[in-house]
Amino acid sequence: MYASPQRITFTNDVDKALIGALSRVSHSNVIVIADENTARLVVPLLSESTRNAQLITISAGDENKTLDTAIDVWQAMETVGATRHSLAINVGGGVVTDLGGFAAATFKRGIDFINVPTTLLSAIDAAVGGKTGVNFNGLKNEIGTFANAQEVIISTRFFSTLPLSEVKSGYAEMLKHALLQSEQSIDRLLDCDFNDLDLDSMLSDVEESVSIKAEIVRQDPTEQGLRRALNLGHTVGHALESRALHKGNPVPHGYAVAWGLVAETVLSHMRLKFPAATLHRLAQFVRENYAHKGLYFTCDDYDELLSLMRHDKKSRQGEINCTLLKHSGAIVIDNEINDDDMRNALDITRDLMGI
Amino acid sequence: MYASPQRITFTNDVDKALIGALSRVSHSNVIVIADENTARLVVPLLSESTRNAQLITISAGDENKTLDTAIDVWQAMETVGATRHSLAINVGGGVVTDLGGFAAATFKRGIDFINVPTTLLSAIDAAVGGKTGVNFNGLKNEIGTFANAQEVIISTRFFSTLPLSEVKSGYAEMLKHALLQSEQSIDRLLDCDFNDLDLDSMLSDVEESVSIKAEIVRQDPTEQGLRRALNLGHTVGHALESRALHKGNPVPHGYAVAWGLVAETVLSHMRLKFPAATLHRLAQFVRENYAHKGLYFTCDDYDELLSLMRHDKKSRQGEINCTLLKHSGAIVIDNEINDDDMRNALDITRDLMGI
Repeated sequence: MYASPQRITFTNDVDKALIGALSRVSHSNVIVIADENTARLVVPLLSESTRNAQLITISAGDENKTLDTAIDVWQAMETVGATRHSLAINVGGGVVTDLGGFAAATFKRGIDFINVPTTLLSAIDAAVGGKTGVNFNGLKNEIGTFANAQEVIISTRFFSTLPLSEVKSGYAEMLKHALLQSEQSIDRLLDCDFNDLDLDSMLSDVEESVSIKAEIVRQDPTEQGLRRALNLGHTVGHALESRALHKGNPVPHGYAVAWGLVAETVLSHMRLKFPAATLHRLAQFVRENYAHKGLYFTCDDYDELLSLMRHDKKSRQGEINCTLLKHSGAIVIDNEINDDDMRNALDITRDLMGI
Repeated sequence: MYASPQRITFTNDVDKALIGALSRVSHSNVIVIADENTARLVVPLLSESTRNAQLITISAGDENKTLDTAIDVWQAMETVGATRHSLAINVGGGVVTDLGGFAAATFKRGIDFINVPTTLLSAIDAAVGGKTGVNFNGLKNEIGTFANAQEVIISTRFFSTLPLSEVKSGYAEMLKHALLQSEQSIDRLLDCDFNDLDLDSMLSDVEESVSIKAEIVRQDPTEQGLRRALNLGHTVGHALESRALHKGNPVPHGYAVAWGLVAETVLSHMRLKFPAATLHRLAQFVRENYAHKGLYFTCDDYDELLSLMRHDKKSRQGEINCTLLKHSGAIVIDNEINDDDMRNALDITRDLMGI
């Protein structure tokens, strides 16, 4: 039950898709949860489907993904007369889908909800997996629950108003899924030109990407094994992201993941003969599109980075653990990486990234 | 997955049972959640099993079953270094098992927990069903989730320190289960003499009672039909309980349920020829053991009571809905009751209760 929502619709007519979803999910009344931006920019585009809905607006930004905001939402739900038969529609990025999902999943022990992600990252992330939550005491997603949306409606139309860096950040997770899938998948994604994005044609790439994750989660909903493949790029990526944050130069999550994908593909080449040609294409793409000062590092930073990798929450007993690939689509989880290999991989990554 | 914990153990050696449970449920470290009373009176009896546990204590009483207390528990979990592999043991009555279960089920999207109920009501209630939650804005269990304890350990030993009214309150829910099960079951429970309670022999009655509920919940975990049988006595019972509360004369939940069982058995007799002999024995038992001024009513109160029944959260479209019985064990759910029949049943109930 944690694995997937009942239905994911990929469409560029969200209002119509939402009318369909509302006809399938029984409910007494509808509540829309949005942030101040999506309330202004996106909710008006859903005027048919949400005609009789009550709107609950939260402040935008990760700093508002808190229990206090969840309390405001519960309070507002009561004010608008929500019952256990009410249905919530979360319209927004990851903050809205994570927090709105949590608020819905815990209101009267859980009401149904539909997710309408409005950023690429939340489309890729919120569609499957059922993770909801809020930050607490500065810890990400510290309070939350697993609860699946009844339906998820995904459109690329909303991305046209996003900053390009946010689109790129979500795209890095798509690169990861493609590497887990096949050479063909990663080849196609590396053809992308962010200066000339075609949002309509992007919808099919998003659909493929979500399907890859859905299949992995279906096979291993509780992360006993295969689902750990989804950590590809994240061991090195999280370390780079944490270091940037500590240095007061935060980077978008997806940028750090893109660099992590390069480093862990280097490791895959060293250990499992991952094809050099694909590695070089990937590195070139990341170098050209994901440059960010916060991510630059030298050999003086290796000790700090290795320490961060050993303390990754997915690590057990302090070893460095990575998912690696024999080639795109050939996954080997749970590779223990010794310090020398990681230092070599970081050396090569710096070369490839030209830093 | 909502239906039952992995294992329910009925025992009078809880410390030993808990050692067994801890060997079965994998964990990195153990946290005990108790209230100030059970921390003092019960946790010391679990000295072997909880030797290496960290203790988190909350204030006793339903007025502390709040989000603020849950926040204190989450905070304390972080302070003692809880991880996603930690295990919580809830030691207490309904406040501790409901709130501790909610805190555990939402900490890092859910850690495992074991319930050790210390009141009869929580033993009967917390063992199966997976309901967790806290009160919010004065509404009972407004925020919560469905999450099953990995194990539940039930002992009657702890009940010796309870006020008799609290034992009786839990016993009313046992009467309900017995009525749903068989004439034999209700006959045996009506032989009880509260002035001469034998807690050791009571354990087998508790085990039977929990098993009855577990079987019903197993057949209908999400309350689509049969599980509504567990509302027996609660349509009238909730109305009496709410009226007593509004009048500033609150009654223990189980007392109101006991009276509700009489009234709904009267209805069962009127509608479905429920045996008069059993009805009279039940009424006599309730009259002798559950007298409470807050529950007394006259025909002047009928309008208020019927209105409360129509607004019961389980009611749809404002009709009065009751579970009835052809005889003990022969359940008919979803009986719509018209006002005249309910007024007649309340008349007869007053006669039987001698008010």
